[in-house]
Amino acid sequence: MEPGSIRSYLDSFSYRDWQESDEDAGPVRFAMVGLGWWTRDEAMPAVDRSTFCETTVVVSGSAEKAEEVAAEHEIVEAGLTYDEFRAGERRDAYDAVYICTPNAKHLEHVEAAANHEKAVLCEKPMEATVERAEEIVDACEDGAATAMIAYRMHTEPAVRRARELVRAGVIGEPVHVHGDMSQSIVDWGADQWRLDPELAGYGTSVMDLGIYSINTARFVLDRDPTTVQSMMHSDHEFFSEVPDEVAAFTVAFEDGVYATCTASQNAAQDSHLRITGSEGTILIEPAFHGESRLELAVDDASVAGDGPEVDQMEEEFDYFADCVLSGREPEGTPAHGLVDMRTLAAIYESADSGERVEV
Amino acid sequence: MEPGSIRSYLDSFSYRDWQESDEDAGPVRFAMVGLGWWTRDEAMPAVDRSTFCETTVVVSGSAEKAEEVAAEHEIVEAGLTYDEFRAGERRDAYDAVYICTPNAKHLEHVEAAANHEKAVLCEKPMEATVERAEEIVDACEDGAATAMIAYRMHTEPAVRRARELVRAGVIGEPVHVHGDMSQSIVDWGADQWRLDPELAGYGTSVMDLGIYSINTARFVLDRDPTTVQSMMHSDHEFFSEVPDEVAAFTVAFEDGVYATCTASQNAAQDSHLRITGSEGTILIEPAFHGESRLELAVDDASVAGDGPEVDQMEEEFDYFADCVLSGREPEGTPAHGLVDMRTLAAIYESADSGERVEV
Repeated sequence: MEPGSIRSYLDSFSYRDWQESDEDAGPVRFAMVGLGWWTRDEAMPAVDRSTFCETTVVVSGSAEKAEEVAAEHEIVEAGLTYDEFRAGERRDAYDAVYICTPNAKHLEHVEAAANHEKAVLCEKPMEATVERAEEIVDACEDGAATAMIAYRMHTEPAVRRARELVRAGVIGEPVHVHGDMSQSIVDWGADQWRLDPELAGYGTSVMDLGIYSINTARFVLDRDPTTVQSMMHSDHEFFSEVPDEVAAFTVAFEDGVYATCTASQNAAQDSHLRITGSEGTILIEPAFHGESRLELAVDDASVAGDGPEVDQMEEEFDYFADCVLSGREPEGTPAHGLVDMRTLAAIYESADSGERVEV
Repeated sequence: MEPGSIRSYLDSFSYRDWQESDEDAGPVRFAMVGLGWWTRDEAMPAVDRSTFCETTVVVSGSAEKAEEVAAEHEIVEAGLTYDEFRAGERRDAYDAVYICTPNAKHLEHVEAAANHEKAVLCEKPMEATVERAEEIVDACEDGAATAMIAYRMHTEPAVRRARELVRAGVIGEPVHVHGDMSQSIVDWGADQWRLDPELAGYGTSVMDLGIYSINTARFVLDRDPTTVQSMMHSDHEFFSEVPDEVAAFTVAFEDGVYATCTASQNAAQDSHLRITGSEGTILIEPAFHGESRLELAVDDASVAGDGPEVDQMEEEFDYFADCVLSGREPEGTPAHGLVDMRTLAAIYESADSGERVEV
């Protein structure tokens, strides 16, 4: 690569290579369903800063909470309960629905949004089980609207650049991948839906964190999982209902590329994704906690890249809105997300049986 | 940690905390058995620079090679064939034997050295199979001499400092580990003993490279393996006789600490060992290719450490000689190495059966 092209590569590090709409297109008006801290502290501020989106409706299980959040935001026109949302109240006030509730509650809200023929942006993992995720796929196919699972790494610049480097053969043929996402949720207390299998699904660390390594490896490698194996266990009392306080799992992708991963909800915060190829390596670290940095090493030389910092949620919402506005399908469709759900289920099955499981 | 103590920690980064002998002790005189490039280019120069060791005898399958190498080194008194070595020729000219031959040839040379009541430093992996490794243990127990498997990471300063940090609880309780050692041996051609199961044993990448992640994790964690699972495959024609051109494997250690690892003899050179604990992480990278660098991260702070560069082989030989001179047992005894051999065998068995295997 010539010096000029490195300069140009760095200048365009955070460039929205995916954007098709003009800056003045939109807005896509969102109903925010589920008003936990992620929606209020991450998603809504990102939407406020975004190019193509605005929040016009907020929806909660609690009428008080919906009204309180609505009152805090001048641009929000209405605060609804889940029942009111399901019944189609104020359906003219929004174009799209962002669903950020416990996993096992996604399906009912997706079905409501599809019934109202709205676009759907649904948090990952899609649902609590493969069967319910399949119902989401069906509901979205029956409804007419754009649907996407909220994989914020798909529009993280470091991840997109990594994918370009892999596609261009800069590290040769991919050989193996290491992925980790760990954090501690113990400080948040025992009363969390992520520790309750009725709401979280098969478990907590792989469902909530491991999915980042799985889906990002899949995205960067342009390959789907074929086989998995795993080990997991829980010791801490908070994790007595879920099998995976900590988990180690390997996902074999097409062409025999192995991604060997860890995830824990009771460890120091850490995240990385490393792709080793026949000719070089790409390291993304930190990877999944909101700011990502890329390092490329080929032979004895290495370059590190991080462009102007982006807000991953802002990029995600604008990408989704851009798909809605341009009428194209996002990469992270429900059918795409279903592959992850099957992979997650296989990982939990393998941990239980001690055997390798095909996805 | 106070500023003064950090300064003092850095100053002593490469300090030989293990050394008991005075600088003028010795020398321990070595017979070098197996005169491949590792012995000639790495081991013998390290011995030349060492504090406690010297090379007085060289042993090869070829009389010409033995004489040629002997002639190149003024300090070497004799060049012997394997037969002459086995027969005990010049046995008064050396105190210890360094064995660096194809894995499946270790046993015969260990037995000869033990018969001559010499100290034994035997390369890893110990042998081609668990059964033959057990015979090495028996032979060394029958002979009177000090015996050690050549784990050069045991005296790598970054590894010793990492172990101290783990023992001191600086990263809390260990939760999981990532390990990788990869390199490309394809440029060396098809005719290599590492690609021949008769000489290498169960395979190539896990036997030759994966053992670094396994043993170093074991050493740093102060825990032994309990269970393993793995996947591996070979595509390249050079690897048609061995199952593991690339491998991904997980080793569960005592207390449920998972080490998830990769190894490939046909990938870009890469090595790292990362230990994530409940309170922080330790990264050693590069880890296993001759120069190691340590990074400790706790909360939002991190420190990186690499002391005065050491020669890993020089440290290893001096450590072994120091054990011989002080009459104490090294950590890497044959019984210690046998645990790795059982772990390696279990990893190959798991890859074959698709099932988790207890060590």
